[in-house]
Amino acid sequence: MNKLRIGISASGDGGELDAVKSEIREIRYVFNEKSSITSMQRESLFGHKAATIWLTGLSGSGKSTIAKLLETKLYKKGIHSYILDGDNLRNGLNSDLGFSPKDRCENIRRVAEVAKLMNDAGLVVIAAFVSPYEKDRENARLIIGNEFIEIYVDASIEVCRKRDPKGLYAKFYAGAFTGLTGIDAPYEIPEKPDLHLMTENETAEESAERILDLF
Amino acid sequence: MNKLRIGISASGDGGELDAVKSEIREIRYVFNEKSSITSMQRESLFGHKAATIWLTGLSGSGKSTIAKLLETKLYKKGIHSYILDGDNLRNGLNSDLGFSPKDRCENIRRVAEVAKLMNDAGLVVIAAFVSPYEKDRENARLIIGNEFIEIYVDASIEVCRKRDPKGLYAKFYAGAFTGLTGIDAPYEIPEKPDLHLMTENETAEESAERILDLF
Repeated sequence: MNKLRIGISASGDGGELDAVKSEIREIRYVFNEKSSITSMQRESLFGHKAATIWLTGLSGSGKSTIAKLLETKLYKKGIHSYILDGDNLRNGLNSDLGFSPKDRCENIRRVAEVAKLMNDAGLVVIAAFVSPYEKDRENARLIIGNEFIEIYVDASIEVCRKRDPKGLYAKFYAGAFTGLTGIDAPYEIPEKPDLHLMTENETAEESAERILDLF
Repeated sequence: MNKLRIGISASGDGGELDAVKSEIREIRYVFNEKSSITSMQRESLFGHKAATIWLTGLSGSGKSTIAKLLETKLYKKGIHSYILDGDNLRNGLNSDLGFSPKDRCENIRRVAEVAKLMNDAGLVVIAAFVSPYEKDRENARLIIGNEFIEIYVDASIEVCRKRDPKGLYAKFYAGAFTGLTGIDAPYEIPEKPDLHLMTENETAEESAERILDLF
């Protein structure tokens, strides 16, 4: 892969700056490409831009529900998307990883690398992972680049415990395991997410629509 | 992910059998889906089926050249494809892996898992890897399933050494490293590839066309 580092300083009004940014983006496309098809050609074949919608939040906050609703809404708009979540990652690519901080970090790193490849292929990725550590999410942002959109799926631990869609909280309190995020393992709240969804005060349908508005 | 095992015995003429197979395929789609969009819906959005074209062969056999030509040809037909190769995997997802037999095995496993996800998302994957071990390719086939198409990109070690597109043979003979496939590390020839390309007797253009004929 050819790599090109671009240093840029630009002044002028918004329009001029946008034009420069657009030109740089074009240069990046050309030089980052290892394949014979450019990202712009891909975009034109797909009819839309690539992105990674990164949903972070406690178990039970609503990530999976929102991800599926969003997927259906994107499909109806002819946008090619794909959900990456614990179900298809932990059973396959990341089946060798556990839930220690080190393994959680490697889990998120691999997810981000796969999302990057899928973005490069032209897809919109919906990544639904607890991803409790700020530094891991920051690493994902670094790997994925401009396509990364961080969405904080927010619900109180009390509400998540009541919802308990995977029965994790029940199992935890029955003593089946330790290290449950939000209880005895930390969840670091995103400081500046691109979108903050308060799932106690809005329906999953409304949350998905708010994400869709970003497109 | 819901899984359903289907036992089937069918008799009758070809047409009846095909109808039964088609029905089973439909059942498999519905039950394998973790997402709200079925594989059939994806196929209909993309306008084509997913597949993994797995190119195996020595360094210099022509894998990358053929992969790029194929990618362009698929693009012209409106087929969404993506190349997975050492360039985008070894620099990203698999940057933690070396070239020991164990690491080569893990490299191929991860590639196969990514290809499977991309197939699931509806893409045609072109995987170009030396992938010298039969058991690793067999594992890739198991992971990827029916979408896996094995293509043996065949050229003699003498010709590959002359081509030496990455300068690997030169570096090896200059003593820079050991473990070069085909020289002091084994290459296990595919026994029953879906396609056998003899790149000494056909142009890369012809090879790519032969793969295209499989679609």
